[in-house]
Amino acid sequence: MTQELALVEERMRTLLEQQAAHFVHSDKSFPLYQALGYHLGWFDERLRPTGTSAGKRFRPLLCLRSCYAVSGSAEQAVAIAAAIELLHNFTLIHDDIQDRSETRRHRPTLWALWGDAQAINAGDALFALSQLAALNAAEREERPRGIEIVRRFNETTLRIVEGQVLDLSFEARDDVSTAEYLLMIERKTAALTAYAAWAGATVGGGAPETAERFADVGRVLGLGFQVQDDYLGVWGDPERTGKARGDDLRRRKKSLPVIALIERVSPAERGWIRHAWGERDELDTATVERLLERLDYYGIRDIVRATVARYHDEAQRLLAGMNLPSERLEPLRQLVEQLAAREA
Amino acid sequence: MTQELALVEERMRTLLEQQAAHFVHSDKSFPLYQALGYHLGWFDERLRPTGTSAGKRFRPLLCLRSCYAVSGSAEQAVAIAAAIELLHNFTLIHDDIQDRSETRRHRPTLWALWGDAQAINAGDALFALSQLAALNAAEREERPRGIEIVRRFNETTLRIVEGQVLDLSFEARDDVSTAEYLLMIERKTAALTAYAAWAGATVGGGAPETAERFADVGRVLGLGFQVQDDYLGVWGDPERTGKARGDDLRRRKKSLPVIALIERVSPAERGWIRHAWGERDELDTATVERLLERLDYYGIRDIVRATVARYHDEAQRLLAGMNLPSERLEPLRQLVEQLAAREA
Repeated sequence: MTQELALVEERMRTLLEQQAAHFVHSDKSFPLYQALGYHLGWFDERLRPTGTSAGKRFRPLLCLRSCYAVSGSAEQAVAIAAAIELLHNFTLIHDDIQDRSETRRHRPTLWALWGDAQAINAGDALFALSQLAALNAAEREERPRGIEIVRRFNETTLRIVEGQVLDLSFEARDDVSTAEYLLMIERKTAALTAYAAWAGATVGGGAPETAERFADVGRVLGLGFQVQDDYLGVWGDPERTGKARGDDLRRRKKSLPVIALIERVSPAERGWIRHAWGERDELDTATVERLLERLDYYGIRDIVRATVARYHDEAQRLLAGMNLPSERLEPLRQLVEQLAAREA
Repeated sequence: MTQELALVEERMRTLLEQQAAHFVHSDKSFPLYQALGYHLGWFDERLRPTGTSAGKRFRPLLCLRSCYAVSGSAEQAVAIAAAIELLHNFTLIHDDIQDRSETRRHRPTLWALWGDAQAINAGDALFALSQLAALNAAEREERPRGIEIVRRFNETTLRIVEGQVLDLSFEARDDVSTAEYLLMIERKTAALTAYAAWAGATVGGGAPETAERFADVGRVLGLGFQVQDDYLGVWGDPERTGKARGDDLRRRKKSLPVIALIERVSPAERGWIRHAWGERDELDTATVERLLERLDYYGIRDIVRATVARYHDEAQRLLAGMNLPSERLEPLRQLVEQLAAREA
């Protein structure tokens, strides 16, 4: 990666941190902003500054590097990259309430600390803050493009919410197909990564057709990212992921591995799995082990791994087809490689 | 009211209804949009079109008539008026979850029908839709003003959320002062009415100083609106409000009447009221009657009524001080009068 890009990525992180300073100094009667600072990793549970931040920052990096790839100055993408990261975190706060997830990034979630009602408020406030960041980005652009950037930002949000609606509706069903699942994560996860790449290419001065190619790259990267998450949720190394072996199975999460398994097993086995799901909130260790064995038997691990690889290959192929200067493409290629190899 | 304005207000209602048509025709796999149509009154519980809509539409009318008052064509304000109504409804969906309110406008609330998780999604989607409507408004404006309209829209949203944070925090306290309460409703209710009047005057071509005067008018109208709500929650005519006598008292709602009462009673009485609040989820009829008697004794009914009147007088005074053509001001004056006299 060039030194210029490294500096800009550092600036992006700083810009995000500056929001923390704003939160710290805001009116003490508004624990709202401190709660947001906690969610973003800037404060600990007792609202003392941590000096660090949380999260992979994959989406803003995708945005900055897409901008760089079309020969833009990545600096131009800093504001919209920050908006994307804030939007993503708003969706996480509400998701955690909906999924009753008690921990995220090894810490208690906002609702677990502060109650559902105030966590809903924190998410709403972060959504509004993400809009303000997107408007800062729009202001730098020429007229029709500035509005278009914010419009698509909100259309993307609708897709994310639609994905979450589908995901929640899957909980009550045991006949979800792989095809349905992929349509769900295309909205829930890939819509925002598609936007991140599109917005980066757009503010970097890429032509509209070029920006749409970047949206395609972002989309397959988002699909690969989610399926890799699903893979790690079952077969991830507990030492690296911080989660127990087969954690998603235990929590009865309907992610790609079990969906693919259900599609392949005999009717008798399907009945057994459905019965186990219907019985308890969490599966016991013996049932988890039995599921792991069945996943092995049907070769699901390889199938899921191949799916992840296919998405990342597709991303590289799409990038190669755009005839962009290879030194400009390099940081984005490296990001794709890192994602393909990630183990946490 | 002039015929021209009446036509525009009708168009504003039509524009809001058009969204209903969009929801009806949207993908059947997305009950999300049907749920929104239900909340907005366009569908019944079984998602059949009702042919009507719900709500007072006070905020969009304030916006349209403020635009008209500065000699704008009210047509110019239709898009932002719709955005304001959608934003308001997003906050209602999340408020109902937080307050555990089971009915609104005489019908079950979204969460009561569909569960908290999906109701959170519905609110989030409506927030994004309100942004898209605000961007439509921004697109009609010249460059810096267009962005400013959407920026202030989101700053207003932050104020509303801050107000809701405070309101929820009051539930755990029994020493909230009138002053604190007024600061809370200034955010929770008056920020959006201030924005509605400001945005109307702005898109109508009013100078920035004039638009700020309109924000002041909207602010006092919002305060008057909320305190009148509080009044009706205790002393409203059950036939008109559709709520039992003393309903807010029964539900232990800390609205202005009880806050004013607590500030005035003897320490012994204060102890009794706090004890009653601490005891149960809902107060029994005898306790409600006793509270009503105490409110009477301390003249709180007149105090609250005088507060409402003062806000509406202040709105009229501010309007009169702006030297605008009286035929242009008339519809806004009428709205203030209607609000001052409302009984439901």
